[in-house]
Amino acid sequence: MDVRDAGFHGKLDADQSESQISHLALDIGGTLIKLVYFSRNKDRPIDENKNSKNSVIEGRLHFAKFETSKINDCLEFILSNKLHLGGFRHHKDPASDKILIKATGGGAYRFADLIKEKLGVSIEKEEEMECLVAGANFLLKAVHQEAYTYMDGRKEFVHIDHNDLYPYLLVNIGSGVSMIKVDGDGKFERISGTSVGGGTFWGLGRLLTKCKSFDELLELSHQGNNRVIDMLVGDIYGGLDYSKIGLSSTTIASSFGKAISDNRELEEYKPEDIARSLLRMISNNIGQIAYLNALRFGLKRIFFGGFFIRSHAFTMDTISVAVNFWSKGEAKAMFLHHEGFLGALGAFMSYEKHSRDDSTSPQLGQRYPVCTPLVGDKICYPLNGDLNDNDSLECSVYVA
Amino acid sequence: MDVRDAGFHGKLDADQSESQISHLALDIGGTLIKLVYFSRNKDRPIDENKNSKNSVIEGRLHFAKFETSKINDCLEFILSNKLHLGGFRHHKDPASDKILIKATGGGAYRFADLIKEKLGVSIEKEEEMECLVAGANFLLKAVHQEAYTYMDGRKEFVHIDHNDLYPYLLVNIGSGVSMIKVDGDGKFERISGTSVGGGTFWGLGRLLTKCKSFDELLELSHQGNNRVIDMLVGDIYGGLDYSKIGLSSTTIASSFGKAISDNRELEEYKPEDIARSLLRMISNNIGQIAYLNALRFGLKRIFFGGFFIRSHAFTMDTISVAVNFWSKGEAKAMFLHHEGFLGALGAFMSYEKHSRDDSTSPQLGQRYPVCTPLVGDKICYPLNGDLNDNDSLECSVYVA
Repeated sequence: MDVRDAGFHGKLDADQSESQISHLALDIGGTLIKLVYFSRNKDRPIDENKNSKNSVIEGRLHFAKFETSKINDCLEFILSNKLHLGGFRHHKDPASDKILIKATGGGAYRFADLIKEKLGVSIEKEEEMECLVAGANFLLKAVHQEAYTYMDGRKEFVHIDHNDLYPYLLVNIGSGVSMIKVDGDGKFERISGTSVGGGTFWGLGRLLTKCKSFDELLELSHQGNNRVIDMLVGDIYGGLDYSKIGLSSTTIASSFGKAISDNRELEEYKPEDIARSLLRMISNNIGQIAYLNALRFGLKRIFFGGFFIRSHAFTMDTISVAVNFWSKGEAKAMFLHHEGFLGALGAFMSYEKHSRDDSTSPQLGQRYPVCTPLVGDKICYPLNGDLNDNDSLECSVYVA
Repeated sequence: MDVRDAGFHGKLDADQSESQISHLALDIGGTLIKLVYFSRNKDRPIDENKNSKNSVIEGRLHFAKFETSKINDCLEFILSNKLHLGGFRHHKDPASDKILIKATGGGAYRFADLIKEKLGVSIEKEEEMECLVAGANFLLKAVHQEAYTYMDGRKEFVHIDHNDLYPYLLVNIGSGVSMIKVDGDGKFERISGTSVGGGTFWGLGRLLTKCKSFDELLELSHQGNNRVIDMLVGDIYGGLDYSKIGLSSTTIASSFGKAISDNRELEEYKPEDIARSLLRMISNNIGQIAYLNALRFGLKRIFFGGFFIRSHAFTMDTISVAVNFWSKGEAKAMFLHHEGFLGALGAFMSYEKHSRDDSTSPQLGQRYPVCTPLVGDKICYPLNGDLNDNDSLECSVYVA
């Protein structure tokens, strides 16, 4: 288990547990399960808005993740903290006590029966790409200092002009990679993708290095030197650049190409060098394919999300360099602070739909936190945006 | 050593050795050295063309390859068969007895001193991309049944309309991959490339399977099942398609992604399954990047060359499917019978330049076989084109 809110270990601490925790949403991917849920600040009463039928609740959005292969740990965490009670009752049958939980990702299909059995709640499936886009749009518009560039070790926050956000390319790097052209709220098209993603890094990395976790592999790559295994232009050209086509001697000509002629066994390479070459190969490849797709549609901004990145400096640097190199400086790679939770956030926000549908049902109304910073294209209700130390998100929500 | 002309083993057989072998050209890449040389048919005299200053010699072009790491074997082969004498003397100093051999690829720089030392000849370096393009144009225009498509196990020769050949995309898959937009003879631009190429397949493959040769790895992949290690859409979606975005349950969502959760060690996977996943990942990736680049420039035809392919059915099938899938049937992958020898052929043809420069030098003139099927854009001298059984190329050449 890895809960971003650092205070959480298995069971929430008493303080948090006592506050009303509700409105769980899940994104169950091939490798990771991502959770988003809302906790009401217990010391702050509901702020009744006199000019509207809605109330505002202040609280926090929390983020957690588990490995998909350890889904039982995840369900245990949900159960012991009663997060599953923060769903909603079916709007077509308000009398029913059947609770529905929003979920997206392939696991919403794959594990629907298991979740029903263990938690006694049903899954309301939300479409994966829709959730990714909704999550990204929400973060870009509502959260201050969400997007940033990273190059040569320097992180720079990007000011998002809400009137000039679209179109952009969203590249979500999970186990595989989806590339989505986003033209507005709910307006998008999945234009490309690649199977060479986070699952490839971790899968190949496990086989090659015997690392026990993704983060261990990432940490290893930090210490490695890719030149040990990658065949560089200089290796082929006797130390020279191939300047006529703009390739310096240190450009990678062939990832893992040096392993051809070294006559070394796998065990004779340092795991950190292997991890480094692997990370660079995959990051560079994703950056290149993303750029080529951005080019097709004239998209200047590329936002990279998904749990592959994990704010890892070298990963971001490689992706940025790739986009910069291939676009000759025309396109820009940007990263998102909540990179891994786009889908889960999108699923969380889909509770809003039911809030609208069921405004006649006050009992349910209490249960729908709706992070709706937007009306049309304008932010009318900015969240109390900044990220706090433990990565949960201060947040005010409408309650119908 | 692997000589395409099946009769060659170390030393050429007497019959071939007695015929005049000359005009060696080399392409020394990161992984392989490719050789092209010409042998005159000893039973056929020079056919003096009364209407021209030139003579025509009939003979054969021969193709051979060695691993770059075993360059000494290659030099021994050249030496024992006196291929190195088939160079030319420097045109600026005809009196000099310094012999120059045409070579391209990074190794022309890296091994220039070694070659000088062992063979006593100097290397005349030819630019790699120029040679690839010259070689491809030559093959496409002069050799019958050179280009073909491959899909669903069916090979179909492509008729090349010489008046409608350009522009095309040339994708040369060596250790790394170069993508070149070709607009005419000598008119081209290297528009892209990727470090994920043949060297990656063989380098990663060696580390993961302990195979002893590229061909062994390729053969293994033939018997493997990629679904054992690749994470498919159906693995994430509980056996279902993700039909909304057009992905079937058998689409690879994440190459090597299943190795994440299997808890199996490398040794517990079958090498053939690993080889299959690796080949599919790399072929598919190259096909996708090639297509995206073809799209940028509106190129409908993509020719794939380089020694990675080796006429391997599954490789070609995967590349074809990738190009077809991403282009929605708009673009077509085509392959070249002499795929691995584009650069070496281009270097061979560059002897022509010297033939022109030195037409005053009859002594040298004898030494320049010039495969010039083209005058302007028309074939005026088609080669006696078909490939024969042992893959050498029947060929008539001008001699200045």
